[in-house]
Amino acid sequence: MNGLVYTGNRELTRVDLPTTPPAPGEVQVAVAYTGLCGTDLHIFHGNMDARVQTPLVFGHEMSGTVAAVGEGVTDWAVGDVVTVMPLDWDGTCPACRAGNEHICQNLDFIGIDSPGALQQLWNVPERTLVRIPTGTPLDHAALIEPVAVAVHDVRRSELQPGDRAVVIGGGPIGLLIATVARHAGAEVLVIELDEKRRAQIAALGFSTLDPRERDQREAVEEWTDGAGADVVFEVSGAAAAVLGATDLAKVRGTLVVVAIHPTPRPIDLQRVFWRELRILGARVYQRADFETAVQLIADGVIPAEQLITRVVPLEETAEAFADLESGRAMKILVDVAGTR
Amino acid sequence: MNGLVYTGNRELTRVDLPTTPPAPGEVQVAVAYTGLCGTDLHIFHGNMDARVQTPLVFGHEMSGTVAAVGEGVTDWAVGDVVTVMPLDWDGTCPACRAGNEHICQNLDFIGIDSPGALQQLWNVPERTLVRIPTGTPLDHAALIEPVAVAVHDVRRSELQPGDRAVVIGGGPIGLLIATVARHAGAEVLVIELDEKRRAQIAALGFSTLDPRERDQREAVEEWTDGAGADVVFEVSGAAAAVLGATDLAKVRGTLVVVAIHPTPRPIDLQRVFWRELRILGARVYQRADFETAVQLIADGVIPAEQLITRVVPLEETAEAFADLESGRAMKILVDVAGTR
Repeated sequence: MNGLVYTGNRELTRVDLPTTPPAPGEVQVAVAYTGLCGTDLHIFHGNMDARVQTPLVFGHEMSGTVAAVGEGVTDWAVGDVVTVMPLDWDGTCPACRAGNEHICQNLDFIGIDSPGALQQLWNVPERTLVRIPTGTPLDHAALIEPVAVAVHDVRRSELQPGDRAVVIGGGPIGLLIATVARHAGAEVLVIELDEKRRAQIAALGFSTLDPRERDQREAVEEWTDGAGADVVFEVSGAAAAVLGATDLAKVRGTLVVVAIHPTPRPIDLQRVFWRELRILGARVYQRADFETAVQLIADGVIPAEQLITRVVPLEETAEAFADLESGRAMKILVDVAGTR
Repeated sequence: MNGLVYTGNRELTRVDLPTTPPAPGEVQVAVAYTGLCGTDLHIFHGNMDARVQTPLVFGHEMSGTVAAVGEGVTDWAVGDVVTVMPLDWDGTCPACRAGNEHICQNLDFIGIDSPGALQQLWNVPERTLVRIPTGTPLDHAALIEPVAVAVHDVRRSELQPGDRAVVIGGGPIGLLIATVARHAGAEVLVIELDEKRRAQIAALGFSTLDPRERDQREAVEEWTDGAGADVVFEVSGAAAAVLGATDLAKVRGTLVVVAIHPTPRPIDLQRVFWRELRILGARVYQRADFETAVQLIADGVIPAEQLITRVVPLEETAEAFADLESGRAMKILVDVAGTR
């Protein structure tokens, strides 16, 4: 069967992988679509070579159908439409014992630390499967994983209906956070440097701001009648954004750190102290977030058509990465099954 | 009556201030003792010249008795033993309207933004008074304000009995936080560079650590069986401490920013993200914290005798600052009434 492997140094190779039957407790999924995300791009660039073992089949945003079930699997049947919550925890570390399995201290992120979804037949532990309602388009369903990230981020922020939320960074995750926050009853402002992205976000009905054109602190103060935003989501990964983010939050407001910041970032702790701010790290998702994400996709709350820039065959994945890198694309799906 | 004013450039002058009767709604307090704190030291050094108006009577940690009451004051009588919660809020800003009066966006911190307790007769708004139980030594009672800071910091951290807490910085506030956290049922480790302070803290029964002698991350991992601390209090104000603090917290652990950091500090946001940490700013106190602090002092939970290095007359305040600056003293009280 067809698969794609990262072999290091920006090299991707399409390979004919051996088909292995699912082990006891595993389910074999026929992958339909796999989305490419920022983490995949980091892997492709070699930034994660210290973590990943090559050759690696990566990919962790996907949709598919059950192709076979291993011994002892009773909850799933061939033909079931599914996605995968790609986390495998040890269940024994202090984080797991405290109920935070999703950020297990020895987490196996499937598709990074073990083989992922850029292969036609993918064996995964039964407990990672999430059911998708019949009738959900499979391309839309490949967005469930990033939507679950956004759901987790918004849930962690404890955002309330009527809140004013600022999203710094209008890439796919930023746009999904904005969508989920709006659906939860918030007014949302998206700060984004790229003009095309701003236009795309504005077309979805969000307020946008270019911080080079308008002082963002002033704009947020004015918008919130001098209070500041209830919640600020830092999704850009930029040092300047972090430094400015604390200025945007109200007294006792919340700043959620969603983006990956590879090096320590200066933070205005005087402001954190002065306003008794709360900064929260938010990583991946829990099962409840995945269930909510499935529903948001099934209900059409997520503007999937506008998010999916295009669908490419396996062999065009490297070109797709180039488009993601340049910001020319929001979300690109790989047609793993080769049905298009 | 006697008072002390800061006139700028490390200059303190003992002055004979005019006695003004309390205005309607005000109470005149005969000040017994006034404690000197880090903020007072900052004022003395001129670091807060942009904020304070000179000549300034500073001081905000105090104890005393009611000397006179203004028109309309019915809850207080001459001779009542009191301390003052030195916050005056506008009640109309967004923070006040949301119930966060203690960090009002236009807060008047009495003793910084308006005249304070280094005067024998001090007129304050009635609502700032806090009753002290009869029999509480007045010198101990001058510690209520810094104890209220510690109570607020611990309450904000949501520390639970059985938690393991790290306090970075073993000055007066760090030691009070350690004491309050222990009283709340936590095991406490205090990280402090100064050998004499470590000895003093150890003598009060706390574990201490010199991070130059022992890797603090390793030590905390070992102490917490690989989990990390539930709560870390950053009380040192040092950039290196902030950078290392995130390493000490468990998955979903809390870092409370207590110290003042005049410039932005690099923070390991990768760790904040990875472990879903929570960083909380904590500033001053609310009335409930003051009430708790009064009780902790009255009950003898706070080791007041060990904390109060010495008591000086008004005219030795400048020398007292020199001792505080060099770390030769933990807490120095000024005998404002001149009774000793």
